[in-house]
Amino acid sequence: MPIKSRIRAIPDYPKKGIMFRDITTLIKDPAGFRLVIDGLTQRYLENGVDFDVVVGVEARGFILGSALAYTLGKGFVPVRKPGKLPADVVSQEYELEYGTDKVEIHLDAILPGTRVLLVDDLLATGGTALAAAALVEKVGGVVAEMAFIVNLPDIGGERKILDKGYRVFSLTEFEGE
Amino acid sequence: MPIKSRIRAIPDYPKKGIMFRDITTLIKDPAGFRLVIDGLTQRYLENGVDFDVVVGVEARGFILGSALAYTLGKGFVPVRKPGKLPADVVSQEYELEYGTDKVEIHLDAILPGTRVLLVDDLLATGGTALAAAALVEKVGGVVAEMAFIVNLPDIGGERKILDKGYRVFSLTEFEGE
Repeated sequence: MPIKSRIRAIPDYPKKGIMFRDITTLIKDPAGFRLVIDGLTQRYLENGVDFDVVVGVEARGFILGSALAYTLGKGFVPVRKPGKLPADVVSQEYELEYGTDKVEIHLDAILPGTRVLLVDDLLATGGTALAAAALVEKVGGVVAEMAFIVNLPDIGGERKILDKGYRVFSLTEFEGE
Repeated sequence: MPIKSRIRAIPDYPKKGIMFRDITTLIKDPAGFRLVIDGLTQRYLENGVDFDVVVGVEARGFILGSALAYTLGKGFVPVRKPGKLPADVVSQEYELEYGTDKVEIHLDAILPGTRVLLVDDLLATGGTALAAAALVEKVGGVVAEMAFIVNLPDIGGERKILDKGYRVFSLTEFEGE
């Protein structure tokens, strides 16, 4: 069974009209979890995207990013919600449909010039991913690529990210569904 | 450099008088991250604690639990803060110093009889770990062991967990420091 069919669809979550793609059903099963991590690992062993550290976005990005950092022999740096990191941080606000949200990174987490693979579970509007990329750049890092399990191209995040000159990779996508 | 010396101490965080143990400095370095995951992996390859799935507690428990699930060929199940899981959940409240908090697990995340390794970064009061264990048991699972990077035995969580009959393992501890 491929990755896509292991992802659960939950209608009207978090609100009416949204079809939520739930990866917990994919990763609770050893074979599913291995498919995901091996798929990403293979991508970065083979394709020549060069990077030094994996940055995972709270919270589902932690689950993918850390296992991937391990298989690739890299370190792991978390991008977190406000107030969760104990040392000095840099912050980045981003727009939600209503209002704004914020993410943070430790000021000393990434040395200037460090190349970063940014990891999250799902690419929809791209708002969080672009905010995380901005954080990496604020502390002097370079975003080598952004990796996701699921891309929802209809929502337009992938287009927006590509238009800004970033590289994007996703294991699977749901389009027009 | 051993694990312990890679953990950053942050005085008076999150409040006056608390010495916070920050694992981000440990895991951002490839060698440090590998020490942690290999240390836990070795424990569970060698010691005969039998389990089927890794349960990680949001959010730092995701970072350790998922890489460990991968190295051991297991699946990964998240225990999350309220409102973060999209399908039907079971909840467990637990006491904080002031007030209460809550954690949740998907009702169908764990089949009855499934043996679980519970993973988090730090054992202090044990409140979150015991709440997560209660969740596992509410859905019919069995807690085979609880694993941490850091134990703070002075705070008493380890004692409390052992007194309830659970097994505990930690890679390092800070005592009287």
